[in-house]
Amino acid sequence: MAYERDNIRRLSPYVPGEQPTDTKIVKLNTNENPYPPAPAVLQAIAGVGVDDLRSYPSPTAARFRLAAAELHDLDPDQVIATKGGDELLRLAITVFCEPSGSGGSGGIGETWPTYSLYDVLARIHDTPIVRVPLEEDWAIPQDFASKLNDAGCRLAMVVSPHAPSGRYESCDRLRQIATEFNGVLLIDEAYVDFARLDALELIRADGAMDNVLLLRSLSKGYSLAGLRFGYGLGHRDLIAALDKARDSYNTDALGQAAAVAALKQRDHAKASCAKVVDERRRLGDELARLGWWVWPSDSNFILAKPPESGPGARDIYESLKAGGVFVRYFDQDRLRDKLRITIGSPDQNDALLKALTARARQDQ
Amino acid sequence: MAYERDNIRRLSPYVPGEQPTDTKIVKLNTNENPYPPAPAVLQAIAGVGVDDLRSYPSPTAARFRLAAAELHDLDPDQVIATKGGDELLRLAITVFCEPSGSGGSGGIGETWPTYSLYDVLARIHDTPIVRVPLEEDWAIPQDFASKLNDAGCRLAMVVSPHAPSGRYESCDRLRQIATEFNGVLLIDEAYVDFARLDALELIRADGAMDNVLLLRSLSKGYSLAGLRFGYGLGHRDLIAALDKARDSYNTDALGQAAAVAALKQRDHAKASCAKVVDERRRLGDELARLGWWVWPSDSNFILAKPPESGPGARDIYESLKAGGVFVRYFDQDRLRDKLRITIGSPDQNDALLKALTARARQDQ
Repeated sequence: MAYERDNIRRLSPYVPGEQPTDTKIVKLNTNENPYPPAPAVLQAIAGVGVDDLRSYPSPTAARFRLAAAELHDLDPDQVIATKGGDELLRLAITVFCEPSGSGGSGGIGETWPTYSLYDVLARIHDTPIVRVPLEEDWAIPQDFASKLNDAGCRLAMVVSPHAPSGRYESCDRLRQIATEFNGVLLIDEAYVDFARLDALELIRADGAMDNVLLLRSLSKGYSLAGLRFGYGLGHRDLIAALDKARDSYNTDALGQAAAVAALKQRDHAKASCAKVVDERRRLGDELARLGWWVWPSDSNFILAKPPESGPGARDIYESLKAGGVFVRYFDQDRLRDKLRITIGSPDQNDALLKALTARARQDQ
Repeated sequence: MAYERDNIRRLSPYVPGEQPTDTKIVKLNTNENPYPPAPAVLQAIAGVGVDDLRSYPSPTAARFRLAAAELHDLDPDQVIATKGGDELLRLAITVFCEPSGSGGSGGIGETWPTYSLYDVLARIHDTPIVRVPLEEDWAIPQDFASKLNDAGCRLAMVVSPHAPSGRYESCDRLRQIATEFNGVLLIDEAYVDFARLDALELIRADGAMDNVLLLRSLSKGYSLAGLRFGYGLGHRDLIAALDKARDSYNTDALGQAAAVAALKQRDHAKASCAKVVDERRRLGDELARLGWWVWPSDSNFILAKPPESGPGARDIYESLKAGGVFVRYFDQDRLRDKLRITIGSPDQNDALLKALTARARQDQ
């Protein structure tokens, strides 16, 4: 007998990128940062003592909220600490969307394509999903907000820089969407540390919007994917509502200590992001030289399309994998002919380029 | 303007026991273990290197599931790792209960009183709650399952040993409930490491039930409340359904490493639990000598009622707190005249007894 709800039974769960245990693999498939976190982060972890482990942590991650508020020039009650950015996504859907089933209203609106976890979380909550296809250049269509309003959406998910294209959306455009949209706009800035600018001005004192949430993650920009630490920023009323719905102790003593240290060492993170951005330019140029089409990216990955004359994206993905180089292939509309490639260290990127060159030679 | 759903707006969030930062406080209010975790746990944390932090952790906590399966003589697919036991509770409600509002069916059934987080999680999910009052001696009434069936409950929450009474339920009684109940029985064994026996036989090969889930926590028995690590055990179909609904990387590299080390050092945990059990006996005896009524407990706390001739429970709670000794007071039916006291170290328990004796003398 099956005890789970119908929506859970029907659900195809989220499939994360492969996490091979073989450390020799050149892993350019899950957007990890190739550079280490700040040494102070490891020191902070080592400084967590027996009593910190034995006792409950701060339920609100008080010290972290203070550090994040200071970094972003906000108040601590505009910050919520979460178990990775993913928890913030789930909380936003739980708090703002109605579990009215796929035929109802009150659901989420998203661009298409987008981060595939949104759909999984919406299906778990049994809330309807409205998809608005992106323009050819991955821009958000002008009628995005009005389409969402027509469908009664309560939450709009926008990734900026966008995944998997890497496209950057301007603050002006995002403000326009927030102004037009009747619900809450969640701007998923998981990759913002590699971008030219962020959307903080939308929630700062002058001209702050009451319906904008920013998602931040320590996974990429701070080289801490293993830590599962993220946070949300926004109007205090939105944060207070999310805070009611989180698990009572959603972050732990080790995570809190490490995350505070990471934010305080912002310069270390900035320096490693700058190196990634340099490599992004180089890898893009090299791929273009090999005949690939590379979309401009503000992220730590690039979306790239192999030359039409040669083998297809899936083929290349498979042969790279066989040679120990992992990139990401999405078997879905508009992405089947492309690969998403994480920017690795110079050595990793060279290994990828070498494998691609060898393959191209072999195909000639 | 309020963007959150009505059920969230109406919600009074869970209130955890106070977590004072003053380390001089004798903290007997949130059921922490007074003894340190195994040294190997700290070594495991120190062994988490830069690459483990930089990369995503195992999404399924593979090594932990293996260790837990080995410890409990189960298969790894009967184990799910969660961010504290609380995440398992949320997942069970999400997966098995219908968000049909307080007037509908498909909700949770619980004894009353019980762990107050159940209600908060149910309200967040907007699923109905059915409460069945416990007997005078905190036993589960014989008609518990039939009452839940009549109300269409899909999930029954039973804490064993019970919080806040400490009462132990026998496997036979729990099996009877699981047999009679039409939905999933979640047995919250957060405190089972201090009990005479657990309910594992309900899910082991011979006579395994397909509708029983056990919740385990490393917070108390393993002295790791700061880590936020728990797990669920049960039939593989139930575990698979829960697994679909968890956040994609719900536990982190540090937590996984520490939790594996903790399970492997089970003897260390057992020894510290045995010391707590010894102190539980002593503290109970001493309180009885002071005229308190103490319920038999299989947990790391005791529920105790002060003598009727003296000041009331709230009064005592307040004066203890003023003197730097924290215990837990619940301002609700059947608990207003009692205190829940965590078993501390011998010194902490002595400090409590000394404060109570001084107070009793002063009242004479």
